[in-house]
Amino acid sequence: MTGISIPFPEIKSVFKQILVKHGFAENKADMCAEIFAVNSLEGKYSHGIYRFPRFVEYIRKGYISVDAEPELIHTAGALEQWDGHSGPGPLNAAFCTSRSMEIANKYGIGCVAIGNTNHWMRGGTYGWQSAKKGFVFIGWSNTAKNMPAWGAKDVHLGNNPLVFAVPFNDEAIVLDFAMTQFSYGKVETTKLEGKELPFAGGFNKQDELTTNPEEILETMRGLPIGYWKGAGLSLLLDIMVSILSAGLPVHKISEREAEYGVSQVFIAIDIKKLYNFPAIEKTVTEIINDIKESIPINKNSDIRFPGEDTIRIRNENLKNGIPVNKAVWEELLKMQ
Amino acid sequence: MTGISIPFPEIKSVFKQILVKHGFAENKADMCAEIFAVNSLEGKYSHGIYRFPRFVEYIRKGYISVDAEPELIHTAGALEQWDGHSGPGPLNAAFCTSRSMEIANKYGIGCVAIGNTNHWMRGGTYGWQSAKKGFVFIGWSNTAKNMPAWGAKDVHLGNNPLVFAVPFNDEAIVLDFAMTQFSYGKVETTKLEGKELPFAGGFNKQDELTTNPEEILETMRGLPIGYWKGAGLSLLLDIMVSILSAGLPVHKISEREAEYGVSQVFIAIDIKKLYNFPAIEKTVTEIINDIKESIPINKNSDIRFPGEDTIRIRNENLKNGIPVNKAVWEELLKMQ
Repeated sequence: MTGISIPFPEIKSVFKQILVKHGFAENKADMCAEIFAVNSLEGKYSHGIYRFPRFVEYIRKGYISVDAEPELIHTAGALEQWDGHSGPGPLNAAFCTSRSMEIANKYGIGCVAIGNTNHWMRGGTYGWQSAKKGFVFIGWSNTAKNMPAWGAKDVHLGNNPLVFAVPFNDEAIVLDFAMTQFSYGKVETTKLEGKELPFAGGFNKQDELTTNPEEILETMRGLPIGYWKGAGLSLLLDIMVSILSAGLPVHKISEREAEYGVSQVFIAIDIKKLYNFPAIEKTVTEIINDIKESIPINKNSDIRFPGEDTIRIRNENLKNGIPVNKAVWEELLKMQ
Repeated sequence: MTGISIPFPEIKSVFKQILVKHGFAENKADMCAEIFAVNSLEGKYSHGIYRFPRFVEYIRKGYISVDAEPELIHTAGALEQWDGHSGPGPLNAAFCTSRSMEIANKYGIGCVAIGNTNHWMRGGTYGWQSAKKGFVFIGWSNTAKNMPAWGAKDVHLGNNPLVFAVPFNDEAIVLDFAMTQFSYGKVETTKLEGKELPFAGGFNKQDELTTNPEEILETMRGLPIGYWKGAGLSLLLDIMVSILSAGLPVHKISEREAEYGVSQVFIAIDIKKLYNFPAIEKTVTEIINDIKESIPINKNSDIRFPGEDTIRIRNENLKNGIPVNKAVWEELLKMQ
């Protein structure tokens, strides 16, 4: 695969033109293109440029309504329930994040749940959005079935990504993780490279744990993180998001011909409202400094916090351009 | 080890008398004894009868102030910050759970953070307390250092237990899990039984993953669930609880001669305030039914939800008495 480097503004501009061509209003196309472009800029290529064609396909198939706006269905004070009306997942999610921050600004904490929305692409996007403005953030989404319950041969759980984020100086500490140990994208890449996964990542046909990506892709039974713990967490996240949003749970999303109409929760806490606000930056810095004092197993690598690589990659890609597969880029240019 | 069976009221009564002897007021002794006794009743023996002697030791050493009451330091609407004043962990935690429910009853969601408190014993206690009264619950505690950061040779993270709970008919679905794959208690038991752990549970002196409990007890380097994911989650939980409670983070608790003065967060959501409240029981039941339709790997075992075993064990122990090691019980009787 030939790689090329594309500057951030150029990728964003191409995304935007394609979105406008597919019926997005100018300002919404800009916002949505920004999210996809930043995902690539920050090294989450699987949820940036490489995911964009499927996003467009879902628009064409009518799974995503380009001009839908989220609608407030019910408010319970610091908790609001919204209907996403099948709108673009990244726009609905960015909206809910903003809205949770507004509520938090009033009540200290704000919770927004949304049903009938679409794939938010990269959950970390909303953690960064919230934490960089001074909010603690917790959010998650459900998905279609792609992971077995603990002790099961078939998939009944989603890998329901979960995001935690906190402000850190002018940046943020952002943890964005799915309930499967490895994404199916990672498993596929590992197969293409002819390698094994570094740890067991799923089950083979004999119901045994395996590091072999081919065997996992045969069964499509990814391993829940922490075995029964991640399986339990996936279940609880799905139940909670379905209760709060009144949207579809994993098993109902999975009845559809594709993964659309998912449910999400966004919780923000406004740290300016805390009595210890002036001391918080020092508290977080001391925690990070303590972790950094760990003795590394590999002398050449340091101990990093979640999101630290994102900052580094963002800076590299801003300077050198975003690495893109040439064929993928050329396909994208044709979509304009 | 000789085992005997003690009826729930008898265990509770013995706990209560010991607590009164150590300065607890009658009503507080009753509440605290109830929590320890229910932990044993529901099969969490490590956080019931087997943990009780250490709780008493901490009172004797002055780490736990038997008559301290939590104090409201600051309110930001639906978010409150409390000081635990070194009170008994289970009482402070049960109080914060109730308080988060009161706030949720007003604002839909309620968040209580508490610093300067003590070990809550079993996090699930508060999940059950909240969910059985119709609240969705999220809560967590930090701990002293007992887990390495990802890629580290030494421990800088806590295993920070995290609890998610939702109402389910008259019972609840409760997930209560620490960030280490196995508790050190489980590792010790496995060593005593001369067995290996079913999955890698920590690192040996050569920095390799191992299922050998003896090797793990040598290094005391438990494995984070999901490797880097559980390590990241532990860090985020510690940062968040330290920000919200203004209490001690993991690294400062670890400077003390024992694990006391921890920090906790309690979030409740009142599902009666949701517009879809009448449909929630059906929604949750359908999700559970779907999971139950999984094909089990082992034909003789079914797929269970978190907390399902708790209900079964509670009923068994109510009927047959709580299984207790005879020597431990006799030691306890001497403490009265």
